Amino acid sequence: MTRLSNYFLKTLREDPADAEVASHRLLVRAGYIRRQSPGVFGWLPLGLRVKGKLEQIIREEMAAAGAHEVHFPALLPREPYEATGRWEEYGETMFRLQDRHGADHLLAPTHEEAFTLMVKDIVTSYKDLPLQLFQIQDKYRDEARPRAGLLRGREFTMKDAYSFDVTDEGLAAAYQKQRDAYERIFTRLGLEYVIVSADAGAMGGSRSEEFLLPTPIGEDTFVRSAGGYAANVEAYVTPVPDAIPFDGLPAAEVFDSPNTPTIETLVAHANAVLPRADGREWTAADTLKNVVLAVTPIGGERELVVVGMPGDRDADMKRAEVVFAGADVEPATAADFEKHPGLVRGYIGPVRDGAPILGTEGATGIRYLLDPRVVSGTSWITGANVDEKHVAYLVAGRDFSADGVADMASVRDGDPAPDGSGPIETARGMEIGHVFQLGRKYAEALGLKVLDENGKLVTVTMGSYGIGVTRIMAILAELHHDDRGLIWPEAIAPFDVHLVATGKDPIVAEVAEELAAQLEAAGLDVLFDDRPKVSPGVKFGDAELLGVPRVVVVGRDAAEGFAEVWDRAAGTKDRVAIAEVPGLFRS
Amino acid sequence: MTRLSNYFLKTLREDPADAEVASHRLLVRAGYIRRQSPGVFGWLPLGLRVKGKLEQIIREEMAAAGAHEVHFPALLPREPYEATGRWEEYGETMFRLQDRHGADHLLAPTHEEAFTLMVKDIVTSYKDLPLQLFQIQDKYRDEARPRAGLLRGREFTMKDAYSFDVTDEGLAAAYQKQRDAYERIFTRLGLEYVIVSADAGAMGGSRSEEFLLPTPIGEDTFVRSAGGYAANVEAYVTPVPDAIPFDGLPAAEVFDSPNTPTIETLVAHANAVLPRADGREWTAADTLKNVVLAVTPIGGERELVVVGMPGDRDADMKRAEVVFAGADVEPATAADFEKHPGLVRGYIGPVRDGAPILGTEGATGIRYLLDPRVVSGTSWITGANVDEKHVAYLVAGRDFSADGVADMASVRDGDPAPDGSGPIETARGMEIGHVFQLGRKYAEALGLKVLDENGKLVTVTMGSYGIGVTRIMAILAELHHDDRGLIWPEAIAPFDVHLVATGKDPIVAEVAEELAAQLEAAGLDVLFDDRPKVSPGVKFGDAELLGVPRVVVVGRDAAEGFAEVWDRAAGTKDRVAIAEVPGLFRS
Repeated sequence: MTRLSNYFLKTLREDPADAEVASHRLLVRAGYIRRQSPGVFGWLPLGLRVKGKLEQIIREEMAAAGAHEVHFPALLPREPYEATGRWEEYGETMFRLQDRHGADHLLAPTHEEAFTLMVKDIVTSYKDLPLQLFQIQDKYRDEARPRAGLLRGREFTMKDAYSFDVTDEGLAAAYQKQRDAYERIFTRLGLEYVIVSADAGAMGGSRSEEFLLPTPIGEDTFVRSAGGYAANVEAYVTPVPDAIPFDGLPAAEVFDSPNTPTIETLVAHANAVLPRADGREWTAADTLKNVVLAVTPIGGERELVVVGMPGDRDADMKRAEVVFAGADVEPATAADFEKHPGLVRGYIGPVRDGAPILGTEGATGIRYLLDPRVVSGTSWITGANVDEKHVAYLVAGRDFSADGVADMASVRDGDPAPDGSGPIETARGMEIGHVFQLGRKYAEALGLKVLDENGKLVTVTMGSYGIGVTRIMAILAELHHDDRGLIWPEAIAPFDVHLVATGKDPIVAEVAEELAAQLEAAGLDVLFDDRPKVSPGVKFGDAELLGVPRVVVVGRDAAEGFAEVWDRAAGTKDRVAIAEVPGLFRS
Repeated sequence: MTRLSNYFLKTLREDPADAEVASHRLLVRAGYIRRQSPGVFGWLPLGLRVKGKLEQIIREEMAAAGAHEVHFPALLPREPYEATGRWEEYGETMFRLQDRHGADHLLAPTHEEAFTLMVKDIVTSYKDLPLQLFQIQDKYRDEARPRAGLLRGREFTMKDAYSFDVTDEGLAAAYQKQRDAYERIFTRLGLEYVIVSADAGAMGGSRSEEFLLPTPIGEDTFVRSAGGYAANVEAYVTPVPDAIPFDGLPAAEVFDSPNTPTIETLVAHANAVLPRADGREWTAADTLKNVVLAVTPIGGERELVVVGMPGDRDADMKRAEVVFAGADVEPATAADFEKHPGLVRGYIGPVRDGAPILGTEGATGIRYLLDPRVVSGTSWITGANVDEKHVAYLVAGRDFSADGVADMASVRDGDPAPDGSGPIETARGMEIGHVFQLGRKYAEALGLKVLDENGKLVTVTMGSYGIGVTRIMAILAELHHDDRGLIWPEAIAPFDVHLVATGKDPIVAEVAEELAAQLEAAGLDVLFDDRPKVSPGVKFGDAELLGVPRVVVVGRDAAEGFAEVWDRAAGTKDRVAIAEVPGLFRS
């Protein structure tokens, strides 16, 4: 039994000034965590209890998946991260430091390298595999704007698991085991989830899925179809339409287009000066927008790339990051344009006077990529690469070509699911878990090989599986609270019952003490508010703020043998005979 | 039940090249830990189990002492450590880093500042005290030469507790509770300990004791008397003899002393040229050695200080660090002497021709301190501060004086205990715990005040109490092993029983499986070596190396109903009826 009269807790009446979201506000006010620096928190006893329960659930399901628990330091040497390229790739997000001898170290953001090296040290044969390892450990990321409390901290606790297999089938099986474990974990926590295809991003590798909690306040956008397709927006692949024969397509026609700085003005102008033979109006979808990007590969030179896409779409820079993975990508600046006078700003197009301008074969030599919808035979209005002139009926494959495809245009409701399962809709979600098939990238970089059945050295294939423990705790607080405080799900509540004794009647104290002992004897963890000089109002307020889902109030009806039982989630308060209270909560 | 056929473990036949001590060698060879960088280790499943059991014992005794568990990050901001002076004091031993915005951070070596600030944030009144908090957490120290495995790492797990009280009596009571808890912890771990008075060193404060494990391989020297006095050598206080009247003491007498570079040659020369009236021989104890030190306070100027002490003692630089706490201290260099030509090297003394040379009143102005034994009326042979001349019969208080006392001479067997409990002996020990009364230093620096009973703000007084969890694990491994491997005490053994099935007889496998199930049913944690293709020799070697204290071998006698039971600590191997095996181990 934990007595509030002797507990390290202070609840706050006021919201902390720096708290932007409910979980941050309530976890600080209710005495679960305290800020140490932006995005770095200290843990009070209540917070440790909830975190411990969450970790226990994860440990049980990792054990059920067959994973062994290990533990790595946060402080790791540079060399392995150098070998995999992540020392550079992480950029400013990685905390770096030197020891007294000048040797470089980092505070690990994830531990692929360390696990790979430990397995290399211990495993020699295919007989030692398959293998799944995990740890629950504190990680570091130097976020530019740490905010939202535990939702995105600079220090955070993570469960990271890694699998090691000889064959692709083995990797697929391990991936499935971890994926199943994640489903069990989120189910036990009562967390709704959508499993979406995800781009592997900086992790590399072949298959990757995110577990997203659908919520309008989510940071991530994902798409899904009624037929079961789901992907995050970066992973959405645009279906490629069939090519169109050139026969009968009108010839390209350059036309004057002064004062058409936007797609809208260009479309209006085209409809005015260039009516189509079939009477259809031009729309934004008939225009080809040429987006100029500056792409800088890690350790490489800044290079311009032009991407042509239908004018009714925008460049989605998150999708662009996937197309140009391993490089920084941003819209070209005025300085970039100055260096490339061959691009006529506002009138950029792939050809001028029939001669190629864009593409490695063009006059500018600038790489040119096209949206997948711009298939051979599609006809476009686009820039003529001459000031105040556009060209209409410019046909892909007939009048212009490109160096490749870039699927980075914005995705929107009604776009087709790539698997043919119908139109998609976009929605917001919060990432709650992530599973990756890393493949052989890390094993190759760090030389993790084992002897196969034929005595031949083969490179191991790996998976990586992460859940942000402290982030999940914040998400649960986001989902389970009202305007009075937290309302924890039973699975991770810091206590099973919050027992409040009110008033100065000695019989109340006596009855409450006895009830507390009975509840403990029934195997329940009891938080007992036995504070002698605190008013009932303050005690009730604290009970609502702390968020133990079941509250029992022993007060003025105690003499008659009655208590009040609150179900915080249901919002009910019932008068119950004290003798029946322990029975209510037996599981 | 844990099956070795499916466990993340590889034992090594060879010692790791960098392992200097048995615990490091064996913990690596037996698959408990793996090196990540010098002094930084990763933890394998076996290691995590032992560490977890150790932490559990500590948690239980902290709870019994009334301490609440919290948890702080390793990454902390600079400012609080700046306020207490420790940002500078820690020197190169502290890992420091900057975030992307250039803000300074550290990896905390201990957490006094963070706890003080959290308590300041939560506690407002004397009614909220007394309070004890603790955490079990990973700490960082950038040791110059990390070695000896977990005995002295750069990352290590520590239980650090802190107490907060209004009164000195409250602090003394909290100190006693933690001290008692430490006694219980070490007793449960079977660790012999001596509690010695300790200098508080960089921690500041008033009372401080170390728990030392007496062992000839210990890094620390301590002294103790048969009468119960015990202190580390830095904390030993030399008893001050009574002053001697000047009456009848011979007058000072300068004599030539060429070629007397050492105390021995000086003493021999004095006996040859200056026989004493009473016929006694001069000894080294009759000479006054003047040791020149360079003292550099943090952020201050390098200053020379001379310390006079009996010539039969040496300067103990660890004791000197206590005398000059808060400053760097080292023997003066040739460059220092060049800057002070007033010191005649080899012949340094407090006076020349009757005029003071040393001391702030002397010709050099250099600060002069004396060993406590150099009381008024003691008569010495010492340098005349003239080349090739010494002076005899120079009497303290009559012929020379000093600026103060410096108790930094070496301590040796037979010296008197300061509490009168008889002669001391010196011994070696390993620090296994440390308790400090910090007093109000941290609370003052960081403004931790509470309202007292009269509504007045008073500064809180604090204690700090540390146990190195991973260090204790290494010490237990040092104490409990033989040339075949580890032999864990039952309290922290990774498993209760190590069950080995040997041979290819199917009945062995069957009997062993059944016995494993029975042992588990009896509540024992079983490590079951069920590896089908591993030879009995390798299995026995692993069982001895891993160090589970009780090993059961089911082999060729299984058909007759017998197993072999090893007690690793006792070194016995007994033939036991299998039916009786589970009963042997019931606690």
